[in-house]
Amino acid sequence: MGRTLTYPKRSSNTVNRYKHRATYDLGAIHSIINSSQVLHVSFNPGPSDPFPAILPMIGQMGSFDYPSASIDEPLECYLHGYVSARIMNLARANEGEGLPICVAASKVDGLILSLTPNSHSYNYRSAILHGYAKVVTDEAEKLYAMELITNSVLPDRWRHSRVPPDRAEMSSTVILKVKVVDGSGKIRDGGVSDEKKDTTNDEVTQSVWTGVVPVWETFGEPIPSPQNKVPGVPEYITSFVSRKNTENQSYSEGAAVVTLPPEEQH
Amino acid sequence: MGRTLTYPKRSSNTVNRYKHRATYDLGAIHSIINSSQVLHVSFNPGPSDPFPAILPMIGQMGSFDYPSASIDEPLECYLHGYVSARIMNLARANEGEGLPICVAASKVDGLILSLTPNSHSYNYRSAILHGYAKVVTDEAEKLYAMELITNSVLPDRWRHSRVPPDRAEMSSTVILKVKVVDGSGKIRDGGVSDEKKDTTNDEVTQSVWTGVVPVWETFGEPIPSPQNKVPGVPEYITSFVSRKNTENQSYSEGAAVVTLPPEEQH
Repeated sequence: MGRTLTYPKRSSNTVNRYKHRATYDLGAIHSIINSSQVLHVSFNPGPSDPFPAILPMIGQMGSFDYPSASIDEPLECYLHGYVSARIMNLARANEGEGLPICVAASKVDGLILSLTPNSHSYNYRSAILHGYAKVVTDEAEKLYAMELITNSVLPDRWRHSRVPPDRAEMSSTVILKVKVVDGSGKIRDGGVSDEKKDTTNDEVTQSVWTGVVPVWETFGEPIPSPQNKVPGVPEYITSFVSRKNTENQSYSEGAAVVTLPPEEQH
Repeated sequence: MGRTLTYPKRSSNTVNRYKHRATYDLGAIHSIINSSQVLHVSFNPGPSDPFPAILPMIGQMGSFDYPSASIDEPLECYLHGYVSARIMNLARANEGEGLPICVAASKVDGLILSLTPNSHSYNYRSAILHGYAKVVTDEAEKLYAMELITNSVLPDRWRHSRVPPDRAEMSSTVILKVKVVDGSGKIRDGGVSDEKKDTTNDEVTQSVWTGVVPVWETFGEPIPSPQNKVPGVPEYITSFVSRKNTENQSYSEGAAVVTLPPEEQH
């Protein structure tokens, strides 16, 4: 059935708690990154600032050298940001291997309402990547990444918008490429899980409602701009909206009723 | 009309682009942090690791010393995590002012589909805080933070669950308190905005649909656990679900049709 590629475990990416929910599979981690509308990118601004910085960015896994690579193969993370942002200047200034960064994505799929505050939890999916970021300078690679990122906002949007970008647009767009060193993910699904001291206490079980409230991202009815001249909403947009709404709701509701073996519950 | 408190501008928290969307108001920043189900918390693991780390955590702004303080007053950020996590050990080890961290929250409110990929954008709200994190050791303060955080998952849940936590639960729960040094937020709302070179090009405007796809978080029908013994879903849960769904949808759809003055558009 083929092999599953996993990221190496280093101390900095090893998930120490709830190991059964941890994943080092490239496919699982890359999927969580790709399905997040916003990524948080952390880096150190410099020796004079004690605080790490975090920027919200749009990003997507891809491979310019092997564009047909699938989601569970080694990929780079392309990030879109602004020329003036400090991270871009640092990535430019950072000769050699690039600027060390951390990329994070998290999505909540449900509220786990159990008997005690301590056993409350979320169903969720989260992933991090560590790697070295550099500014993409090759024009063809930059164009590849711009298309990849635009289509991650809305599938097929690139070719339905005014492309290619002109000279001014190409030069004002900065793309970072992250060479990934390691990564990890965590996925929690299932229902509530409580300790025996509470599940056997009638006074508690008869007064506290337990269950899961599913949570998902809904895309609303597209609202045409006052300047829009195209009649109706194009099919690639309406089908995306209805497909994502169905997928998101069904993932979240499905995750709520997964039955975990007892030793994996919490 | 009273004063608006703002965080000081330091180089590390100054928003350099789209200043019109930046905010340093405590109230706006604290609200974005409080309405996020998950926060990303960044810190440096130590001199031997070049990469900043990011952990997903649950957090909430509050003041143990002045519990009646309102959202636009100086507050601390309380974070919930795990005893075994590296950040807790670092915060413990860090004598003096505490562990320097960055806390980030971002929420996407809509996809801005304009004529060219470069003018695509999101409606969104994001905020960051910089500060020094310490482990809360005072029992009463820890209990205050546990209640604050549990009620941030679902309002009023604390008193409807089995409380107070027992000794074992109190000692296995670790709460971080972040003394905030500065913060900033960014809010983007409104519709599409394109450059004149495209809006005056009939070929472009007649082929590219432009508008906004609103995006919001939906809470589904609560699913009782197989072990649940309370008949019906309690009102404080159903009213939360319907109130949040109405609020979230109406914010997102409202943001899409805000009209910005021309000089503030993009």
